[in-house]
Amino acid sequence: MKPLAVDPLTRTAFAPFGDVIETDGADHFPINSATTERFHDLCPVVGRKTLISIFRGRPFALPIPIAMVERHPLGSQAFVPLDRRPWLVVVAPSGPDGAPGEPAAFLATGAQGVSYAPGTWHHPLIALEAVSEFLVVDHATADNLEEHEFGDGGWVIERLP
Amino acid sequence: MKPLAVDPLTRTAFAPFGDVIETDGADHFPINSATTERFHDLCPVVGRKTLISIFRGRPFALPIPIAMVERHPLGSQAFVPLDRRPWLVVVAPSGPDGAPGEPAAFLATGAQGVSYAPGTWHHPLIALEAVSEFLVVDHATADNLEEHEFGDGGWVIERLP
Repeated sequence: MKPLAVDPLTRTAFAPFGDVIETDGADHFPINSATTERFHDLCPVVGRKTLISIFRGRPFALPIPIAMVERHPLGSQAFVPLDRRPWLVVVAPSGPDGAPGEPAAFLATGAQGVSYAPGTWHHPLIALEAVSEFLVVDHATADNLEEHEFGDGGWVIERLP
Repeated sequence: MKPLAVDPLTRTAFAPFGDVIETDGADHFPINSATTERFHDLCPVVGRKTLISIFRGRPFALPIPIAMVERHPLGSQAFVPLDRRPWLVVVAPSGPDGAPGEPAAFLATGAQGVSYAPGTWHHPLIALEAVSEFLVVDHATADNLEEHEFGDGGWVIERLP
């Protein structure tokens, strides 16, 4: 297994893969007689039938093997933490043949969600520290899941920033 | 202002207005090699262009006047608390003329969101205790807002359960 470094999650670093869902740096305006500030339209939602679900993830402990990734070609998939705990985002670019290239790993704060753009290779949910819940906005569509197993045992995350 | 009683939020009581978004009592199944439990498709998402936003709400303090309600005829609108704090849900049935009838008020726990069905009269976001953030899934559509001011000064919430 090859070591995979983890960087802090930022909008710029994550832009090739989708969008970071956070209030920091987002467009916002007051609504409801200024009792509420709306951080508006934080990511595209793409797909045919939008679903709202909650994922309850078991925490992973270091070292974390990254043996596979998956993608949803026909729709976006957004994850937003409901417990304000940090979590791990692992994505990979698509090579010319469509297979995933070398993955990238990001440490998200508990105030950061992400939306994977359609067709973006990513590891399934990686909660940290404790059982954690995430609101998930994705799409009910047939033929919307592809999986890829890395050869050579894949990658391993040995430490966090 | 007429006093408006507050009940705990339950799926049954809220059914005429939309759906409660919570894991308790929801269908679920393991995914991701059983590292994640998916509480699946918790509410319908109805509308033309789905938006994901974060609303940051200032807390209301008792007594809370309910002078108006609004509705979105062309799409659903879901609110899920990101800070695990209780919050207030105020809705009203539509009378035969389409105007709101007597409102109902529900105290949601910090683990409960709601989705308002299209056309459901509701009060704008009422956070409690502290500034609180909510993930909001709604729809960008023209002509999707109606507002109604109650006569006689409306209603007032004087206490919580």
